[in-house]
Amino acid sequence: MTSTESVSTTPAAPEPRTSRTSVLHGTHDLRWETRTVAAPGPREVRVRVRRIGVCGSDVHYYTHGRIGSFVVEAPLVLGHEVMGVVEAVGEGVTRVGVGDRVALEPGVPCRRCVYCKRGEYNLCPGMTFMATPPVDGALGEYVLWPDDFVFPLPDTLSDDAGALLEPLAVGVWAARRGEVGPGDRVAVFGAGPIGCTTIQAARAAGATTIIAVDLEDFRLDLARRVGATHTINARTADVLAVIHELTRGDLPLSHAGVDVAFETAGSLPTTRLTLAAPRPGGRAVLVGLPPDPEVSLDIVSAASREATLRGVFRYANCYPAAIALVQSGAVDLDALVTHRYAFGDTPEAFAFADREKRASMKVMIEVG
Amino acid sequence: MTSTESVSTTPAAPEPRTSRTSVLHGTHDLRWETRTVAAPGPREVRVRVRRIGVCGSDVHYYTHGRIGSFVVEAPLVLGHEVMGVVEAVGEGVTRVGVGDRVALEPGVPCRRCVYCKRGEYNLCPGMTFMATPPVDGALGEYVLWPDDFVFPLPDTLSDDAGALLEPLAVGVWAARRGEVGPGDRVAVFGAGPIGCTTIQAARAAGATTIIAVDLEDFRLDLARRVGATHTINARTADVLAVIHELTRGDLPLSHAGVDVAFETAGSLPTTRLTLAAPRPGGRAVLVGLPPDPEVSLDIVSAASREATLRGVFRYANCYPAAIALVQSGAVDLDALVTHRYAFGDTPEAFAFADREKRASMKVMIEVG
Amino acid sequence: MTSTESVSTTPAAPEPRTSRTSVLHGTHDLRWETRTVAAPGPREVRVRVRRIGVCGSDVHYYTHGRIGSFVVEAPLVLGHEVMGVVEAVGEGVTRVGVGDRVALEPGVPCRRCVYCKRGEYNLCPGMTFMATPPVDGALGEYVLWPDDFVFPLPDTLSDDAGALLEPLAVGVWAARRGEVGPGDRVAVFGAGPIGCTTIQAARAAGATTIIAVDLEDFRLDLARRVGATHTINARTADVLAVIHELTRGDLPLSHAGVDVAFETAGSLPTTRLTLAAPRPGGRAVLVGLPPDPEVSLDIVSAASREATLRGVFRYANCYPAAIALVQSGAVDLDALVTHRYAFGDTPEAFAFADREKRASMKVMIEVG
Amino acid sequence: MTSTESVSTTPAAPEPRTSRTSVLHGTHDLRWETRTVAAPGPREVRVRVRRIGVCGSDVHYYTHGRIGSFVVEAPLVLGHEVMGVVEAVGEGVTRVGVGDRVALEPGVPCRRCVYCKRGEYNLCPGMTFMATPPVDGALGEYVLWPDDFVFPLPDTLSDDAGALLEPLAVGVWAARRGEVGPGDRVAVFGAGPIGCTTIQAARAAGATTIIAVDLEDFRLDLARRVGATHTINARTADVLAVIHELTRGDLPLSHAGVDVAFETAGSLPTTRLTLAAPRPGGRAVLVGLPPDPEVSLDIVSAASREATLRGVFRYANCYPAAIALVQSGAVDLDALVTHRYAFGDTPEAFAFADREKRASMKVMIEVG
Repeated sequence: MTSTESVSTTPAAPEPRTSRTSVLHGTHDLRWETRTVAAPGPREVRVRVRRIGVCGSDVHYYTHGRIGSFVVEAPLVLGHEVMGVVEAVGEGVTRVGVGDRVALEPGVPCRRCVYCKRGEYNLCPGMTFMATPPVDGALGEYVLWPDDFVFPLPDTLSDDAGALLEPLAVGVWAARRGEVGPGDRVAVFGAGPIGCTTIQAARAAGATTIIAVDLEDFRLDLARRVGATHTINARTADVLAVIHELTRGDLPLSHAGVDVAFETAGSLPTTRLTLAAPRPGGRAVLVGLPPDPEVSLDIVSAASREATLRGVFRYANCYPAAIALVQSGAVDLDALVTHRYAFGDTPEAFAFADREKRASMKVMIEVG
Repeated sequence: MTSTESVSTTPAAPEPRTSRTSVLHGTHDLRWETRTVAAPGPREVRVRVRRIGVCGSDVHYYTHGRIGSFVVEAPLVLGHEVMGVVEAVGEGVTRVGVGDRVALEPGVPCRRCVYCKRGEYNLCPGMTFMATPPVDGALGEYVLWPDDFVFPLPDTLSDDAGALLEPLAVGVWAARRGEVGPGDRVAVFGAGPIGCTTIQAARAAGATTIIAVDLEDFRLDLARRVGATHTINARTADVLAVIHELTRGDLPLSHAGVDVAFETAGSLPTTRLTLAAPRPGGRAVLVGLPPDPEVSLDIVSAASREATLRGVFRYANCYPAAIALVQSGAVDLDALVTHRYAFGDTPEAFAFADREKRASMKVMIEVG
Repeated sequence: MTSTESVSTTPAAPEPRTSRTSVLHGTHDLRWETRTVAAPGPREVRVRVRRIGVCGSDVHYYTHGRIGSFVVEAPLVLGHEVMGVVEAVGEGVTRVGVGDRVALEPGVPCRRCVYCKRGEYNLCPGMTFMATPPVDGALGEYVLWPDDFVFPLPDTLSDDAGALLEPLAVGVWAARRGEVGPGDRVAVFGAGPIGCTTIQAARAAGATTIIAVDLEDFRLDLARRVGATHTINARTADVLAVIHELTRGDLPLSHAGVDVAFETAGSLPTTRLTLAAPRPGGRAVLVGLPPDPEVSLDIVSAASREATLRGVFRYANCYPAAIALVQSGAVDLDALVTHRYAFGDTPEAFAFADREKRASMKVMIEVG
Repeated sequence: MTSTESVSTTPAAPEPRTSRTSVLHGTHDLRWETRTVAAPGPREVRVRVRRIGVCGSDVHYYTHGRIGSFVVEAPLVLGHEVMGVVEAVGEGVTRVGVGDRVALEPGVPCRRCVYCKRGEYNLCPGMTFMATPPVDGALGEYVLWPDDFVFPLPDTLSDDAGALLEPLAVGVWAARRGEVGPGDRVAVFGAGPIGCTTIQAARAAGATTIIAVDLEDFRLDLARRVGATHTINARTADVLAVIHELTRGDLPLSHAGVDVAFETAGSLPTTRLTLAAPRPGGRAVLVGLPPDPEVSLDIVSAASREATLRGVFRYANCYPAAIALVQSGAVDLDALVTHRYAFGDTPEAFAFADREKRASMKVMIEVG
């Protein structure tokens, strides 16, 4: 590309920008800093951030300073559910233009390893993923990002929905890993944001019986609003007995069970239930993970029923489908936003999300 | 099973029944006959018929006396879209009971060959399929059928819907063969009953862009009501150009196209379009078949784009999903019934269906 | 079928046969009995047994009287690895004729349930499987069996190979469940008969690196003869370290591991290794099962790597492939037979197999 | 990477190299030119070429100046079956080092589009593929290539085999697209180099009946040496009748046929046979393409049997498997080389390959 052409697409050569940024310096210690965000290089896009959703993992770093082997050892910018407006583009960018509303897919792989070549880029050993130590997230005014992980948003998607494509991508991937198809009966353990996007993705993939299980009626009510056909409060019900009742049909009890069970709560009891809930030949998908690595499971029963157990690690190739599902009306992401904070109140947003897990679904920070 | 037990499930040993039956004796020649339907043997069910949908293949036998290599050489009972009420059950039947509203899956395979064992029973060489010469269909008062191809209907399904599970099963199978998933863009060529159930099944499987193509606005309007997001009247539009426009996104024109194209019209031009419409790596599914076996196709272009071309021959394992989709509200079969005849007017129903193909969608015969 | 035709295919109406049979009356208590085997009914075949392989499950019932929830509560005939010669056929049998050498697939499903219809007949709730209480096995002179689970043997297969198609079917199913393909690297934990048939099936499916792990050099030597490219004696080696070394290539250590790991030893340590051995995105297949249902597993690590864990319960649709693989020379089953007993020495065969697990691979009983 | 580190991996900063190159200036017009090959940039590798296999497509450009829509409009370097030795590496290259014997995968995709992200990089609209106008091939002394499409060769692979990984990759991809598995019966139409690598890949994937069809006994003999179990000379045999005889088993004639048929000859009659050869539910894979885009096919019969028809366009993710298959001994590429020319005799090599298609299999040019 000649410089003349370059000028035509980016009328004024972009300058670096200062970006007011919220930085985690230790547990419960978010500080304001001014960072510089460079001008976009070739195939890069600079985005003025508008919305950041607060994810459970953000809150976990905020509260505990680590998730498993990922430890916050240096100041870290949180936030990876990101929507904004393109403010400058580098050379060769044709996919989006200045002024476009966009969502950012927060993980960028190496593009060259065997996993990337196979399309399994979520497993790329060279992945850089926002807000995962030591990679900074997006909780500031500007972000620089490669153009191929920037997605223009149709007008029909709200700004909030743009940010929430990220948790929806997790749900879409979970449904894909669970091979959900038309007429399937599924159970989703945990009805938080990921549970709800999994419900929505499973319904979009054709599931007709969707059983949501949680400890909080508040969450179960929301789960029902976004597509659950049945809800079970595990405090008061024999979960497995209810699932068997709903799915047995004319088969013996040994063959009752859902086609696919999803764990999204990250607890030991739900992990065990997820393995127990599928019918023979069914699938169990672990989206959440129990707090301790070693889990005592009835693997003999699951294996004898030829259940397939699959983990979920982020997602690959899910943003286009996620956008299409929201645009078509098959999925409603706006329903998930229960609380809303201005950018300047980011510390309060985190304190609230940490404190009120049970009473909130998705906390949204309005940056722009 | 002892005779004592037998008595308990079927209080009075069922007698044979006389069944007023409409029989095709030649083209356009339907005659009334009285046939005898035996008492149900072990694992058999006798059904009092309530609804019979008139299928394009029924009309084709009525008009031409043959479909390809299947030739009507002896009097034949038509009708294979069947709903009724269980009137008697044989020994060992536990799946349904007297009085149950049921749909009949009209094809019964041998259950023992390699195709049946693999679950591909639609390809079983020993298949007997209603209203396919020399096997009689269901257009009479009573039908005897094996219990495993009898499906109880939930209360929420209308009688009409029970009969129309059959064309929906075709649509479900087509969507499965086309591997339709969430966010997919599909084109359906032909918006008759099978085109419409394919649209409904594709939408239930997650398709978000659904382009219906037909020559009749009447049909396209109905297609839109049941889920098409775009309609193209091929009389007035450059079909492929519109499809490319709708699906190209930010890719070069060579990579425009739908993820899956379905042929349901059974014509040469639509067969050619179906092969041309998919993007590189997409799928083309032939549900209908062109009138002549030899078709001149641009196979080089399709193969160079690595399109996958698949035929559809009836369906396997689709009734449970079809029932679940209607029960959940994902599919509305009642919308397809445009005309309705009493059993005694069966000849008029066929004459009408033959004459008014363009102005009708599904003609339903009320038997019960 | 008229009686005239019936006569032509079965010249003399077959009579019942007395069959000297070895019956398990309690642990270590095999007794000889004379049983009557009826004349074959429609689509049934009566086989003069020639070879019975002694399976680990037979020995387990012989020694412990139970396997998990399957308990020997009445006298039981063992033996389900069966080859023989057709001695009489019932009406309608065309697949085999009198005098044909045949193998019997030992499990017969109901043919009518949703699992059978889908081709997943190994999960049929109505399955009857030889030598699984309360269903008798084949350890006698005659067996009656449905014709569709009787497979004629090509001349190139030995009698022993005919009996050993059964454990090979398990290996073929395991490879299928593990989705083994050309160029794959696999690990097989346990190098007993099932481990060895899994090795053979994996190699036939294209695996090019096949790592066998066992505690006995005797078994590892045999594993190498039938296709293992590497062997690890777990008494002396750090198994996981060796597997990582063999599979890492140019990726970081976090991405070392096999494409597919198979557990065939039925122990806790090998179950844990099987879950740890796959690379990110790999598969772990449990063919054997640990002795206790509850197993403490590092499920977090496996799920984070998006490993897929699958159980194996018998097999479906594997006999045709197993026969073809032996006939083509891709698999050598004769190599697995290390010991051989006459029918009259059946009690000695079981005592030996129980005592000398470490020093034997497959014990074969010659019945005919 | 600092310049100090850079020095340590590439001791002397590499200079550009002059490279004697064979350039196609018009049909049958190969001229020698001296080109300059730049020093490797970041993640680039410069290779001293040792072997170039002459492919049918090279010969086609040499003879006709075009293949379909790809037209030679400017001087073009041919050759895309390439093996050589690494002579210099750029910054950041760790996968290979100077002196390594390597094969080059000749197509490099954009790495950023939706096809690349999904792992379907062979369909990438931005693909640059050696010796496809206007992209130059490798028929010179030096080639510069991105490190992720450079594959180090195990010692057990000959130089010839290194170059022939390219046609083997086509065969591996064809077998993958045909879903060949253990026990499958396949037919391969055309027994040239691609036919033979398809045979080898199908055998490695478990095919046990492999029927090769060609017009030349010379080729059929070679096909048998590399794995065909049956050969048919189409000049003298009724091909379809023989295939039906070999595959029918105990099924009706309507259900005879192979599991997978491959077209590798690029002719109209073989394209038609490929569509006719599969059993119901089987697969037909077009590796070659007929000379004219429009082909008259019996699509009705194929669709009624639910055959799946798939094209093959190059390959994706096949080099690692191809290398593993040759290294393990499952595939023998050396057997395919029938003629051999020195680099200086490149014009003679092409003239020979053009003239003696029937009497040669693979012509190899020794560059180094």
